[in-house]
Amino acid sequence: MTTASICTIGDEILIGQIVDTNSSHISQALNSLGIRVTRMLSIGDESNAIISSLEAELAENNIVIVTGGLGPTKDDITKEALGKLSGASGTKTDERQLEIIHRILSARGLDVLDINLAQAAVPDTCSVIPNRLGTAPIMVFDFPEDRFGHKATLYSLPGVPFEALGAIDDVLQDIRSKHSTSDIYHRTIMTFGLAESALSKMIEDWEDNLPEDIHLAYLPNQLTGVRLRLSIYGGIREVEEARIETELAVLRSVLGDYIYSEQDDTLEECVGRLLKAHGKTMSTAESCTGGSIASLITSVSGSSEYYFGSVVSYANSVKTDVLGVPSEIIERNGAVSSECVAAMAEGVRKLTGTDYSVATSGIAGPGGGSDGKPVGTVWIGVSSQKGTETFKLHFKGDRKRNIERFAANALNILRVKLVNELNN
Amino acid sequence: MTTASICTIGDEILIGQIVDTNSSHISQALNSLGIRVTRMLSIGDESNAIISSLEAELAENNIVIVTGGLGPTKDDITKEALGKLSGASGTKTDERQLEIIHRILSARGLDVLDINLAQAAVPDTCSVIPNRLGTAPIMVFDFPEDRFGHKATLYSLPGVPFEALGAIDDVLQDIRSKHSTSDIYHRTIMTFGLAESALSKMIEDWEDNLPEDIHLAYLPNQLTGVRLRLSIYGGIREVEEARIETELAVLRSVLGDYIYSEQDDTLEECVGRLLKAHGKTMSTAESCTGGSIASLITSVSGSSEYYFGSVVSYANSVKTDVLGVPSEIIERNGAVSSECVAAMAEGVRKLTGTDYSVATSGIAGPGGGSDGKPVGTVWIGVSSQKGTETFKLHFKGDRKRNIERFAANALNILRVKLVNELNN
Repeated sequence: MTTASICTIGDEILIGQIVDTNSSHISQALNSLGIRVTRMLSIGDESNAIISSLEAELAENNIVIVTGGLGPTKDDITKEALGKLSGASGTKTDERQLEIIHRILSARGLDVLDINLAQAAVPDTCSVIPNRLGTAPIMVFDFPEDRFGHKATLYSLPGVPFEALGAIDDVLQDIRSKHSTSDIYHRTIMTFGLAESALSKMIEDWEDNLPEDIHLAYLPNQLTGVRLRLSIYGGIREVEEARIETELAVLRSVLGDYIYSEQDDTLEECVGRLLKAHGKTMSTAESCTGGSIASLITSVSGSSEYYFGSVVSYANSVKTDVLGVPSEIIERNGAVSSECVAAMAEGVRKLTGTDYSVATSGIAGPGGGSDGKPVGTVWIGVSSQKGTETFKLHFKGDRKRNIERFAANALNILRVKLVNELNN
Repeated sequence: MTTASICTIGDEILIGQIVDTNSSHISQALNSLGIRVTRMLSIGDESNAIISSLEAELAENNIVIVTGGLGPTKDDITKEALGKLSGASGTKTDERQLEIIHRILSARGLDVLDINLAQAAVPDTCSVIPNRLGTAPIMVFDFPEDRFGHKATLYSLPGVPFEALGAIDDVLQDIRSKHSTSDIYHRTIMTFGLAESALSKMIEDWEDNLPEDIHLAYLPNQLTGVRLRLSIYGGIREVEEARIETELAVLRSVLGDYIYSEQDDTLEECVGRLLKAHGKTMSTAESCTGGSIASLITSVSGSSEYYFGSVVSYANSVKTDVLGVPSEIIERNGAVSSECVAAMAEGVRKLTGTDYSVATSGIAGPGGGSDGKPVGTVWIGVSSQKGTETFKLHFKGDRKRNIERFAANALNILRVKLVNELNN
């Protein structure tokens, strides 16, 4: 089996200033080719450490993916180390990357400085995959079998997550052409509303009866719920996909409405798909979630087709004056109440003239809670021409987590209403 | 200088299922004692890999902090590996941890199973720091100088972030009693509006004249701008802090308004601080940013003191009907125009009765651009009683990045207005 090691270079990770998220994404991508990641490593911007660490990783693995150490102010160290490691006699300039550097900087209205141009210069031992999203090229170093006892390739990627992830497809393609990979067939089931332990209890019997070569992975995520992933390595596509489908048919009957999608997508994409398919529109009225729901919905390209807007009514005066919530409701029940979110949801639907709306009012914390309405309490209202419903939920997290969970649950409550009213 | 390595054990990190956040926190804690972290490493649940990797880390470092590999279902592998590595002849049970295990499980209403009790058993070569927050004890292995050529200590912590971080203070205290530590003095400068390369060019002379023992780090971040960090290891606090301050005085005169804070904080925290200090309030009107600015502002605890709300006017009808933007403006200039964001900013300020407001209208992409207004164009308007100003910016990113940059720049433009109008 082809194995890989993922290394990040940069003092900023070692001093704990930033968390490495690249390695996790790269690992998932390598996994999809049946490549096993044996180690992940972070090292500093120091030439000897870079050389000795990468040599050790190459000795144990076929593929080493390096990210970071390539910013315009510090790429000398990494490039020099990679040059030494690969026995380079000098540098060469990659004309394609040079052109990209000029294009990117002029689009940003920036002067092209010498340190920018220097980014296109690479050790003469490597081949280059142009980085269309940034100034630092992707460097590919191939080592012959006699160097480490096996064929080995080192890929050097920029550290900026957006650029590193943008380069992965090209890197995977290069790996396929040089190393042995196997196909993997998988399906992802998105669930929402069950914790990992409750979900695992619910599908225990089904899981126990899965054929041995069908692997099940739980991928929990606060925002999108638990993803279930079924995979088979190798085999004939049609046969293996049909076998996975057979298992899924049983799973669907067990989980029902907890499954929101069988594509690897988010609640906001799912909501958007439902609205678009039926030509319906929506709006939001947010208090405690402070624009998070709007921000999630508009993160989806094309959302302007179905999303008209939001009133973030953080102050009560905005709830009454803009959304038209009767001030008696707030005086009598408080802003965190069924009556208030119902009036907010109806108010924003009328104000914007949309078919659907969802509203939130709650206490994200850390302050502001009371005995009857502790921190973590949220009321969620959903409204359409067919009626308005409200729900009370409670979570136990810090401010950030509470807001994320409030927003995710609001989207899910809206999704269930859409499914019930539009699909039947 | 005392050096350290941080290792995580667990397949779930290697397959990209979870991101390791423990190492970053542990590194910051070690840094505060002047201990340099030279490497971070993730390895799988495999005995030989654990032993050989930890041996290699101990050979190069005085301190090795291990997290993970200690859950009730899999701690055999890690403990056995640690036992072998340290030459244990058997296990012993830690009575204090046993008591904690009983207490924690009974508080959760769970039966105490054999696999739970087994967690209190540790190799007889280690000493134990009880873990008050969970069932797995913290194991401490001290290696004499003749084993690795230097005094070395290995700490094994649970992988659950809440438990790992909860154990750090006890671990630091143990380190202080065994290894040489020193203080570190640092200051962080937050800048916005300059790319890393342009910033480095601007402060080139200043950087060249920095004393050798003052370390400068660039920490770029799309959302918060580039952070500059100045550090000195060791010395007398008053003396070293005064030396850093002398350098900062020069840096301030070079960078001027590009510095938005000398605390390690975000633009939204900075805006909040300015408003609160002067008893002023604000609101937002967002088109292309779709609630992102509202969401950033309300992520700050206590923002309800100065933030009244937002109108996310994604549809033009919401711009005209809710914000009162004259429809002639949109017909004549389009929604992405100076006139439109000025009217949006003034409209939301009037609607919500706030002192300040900021508004955005632009094209986040991927679709919707035109020759005169390509994808990545944004108009930003800021308004107060003293007047309304508008700015046009252009970025080249994908939808997500464009929205993030639009929002960050809107916050920065508001910040500059607040500084100019409130601090003078």
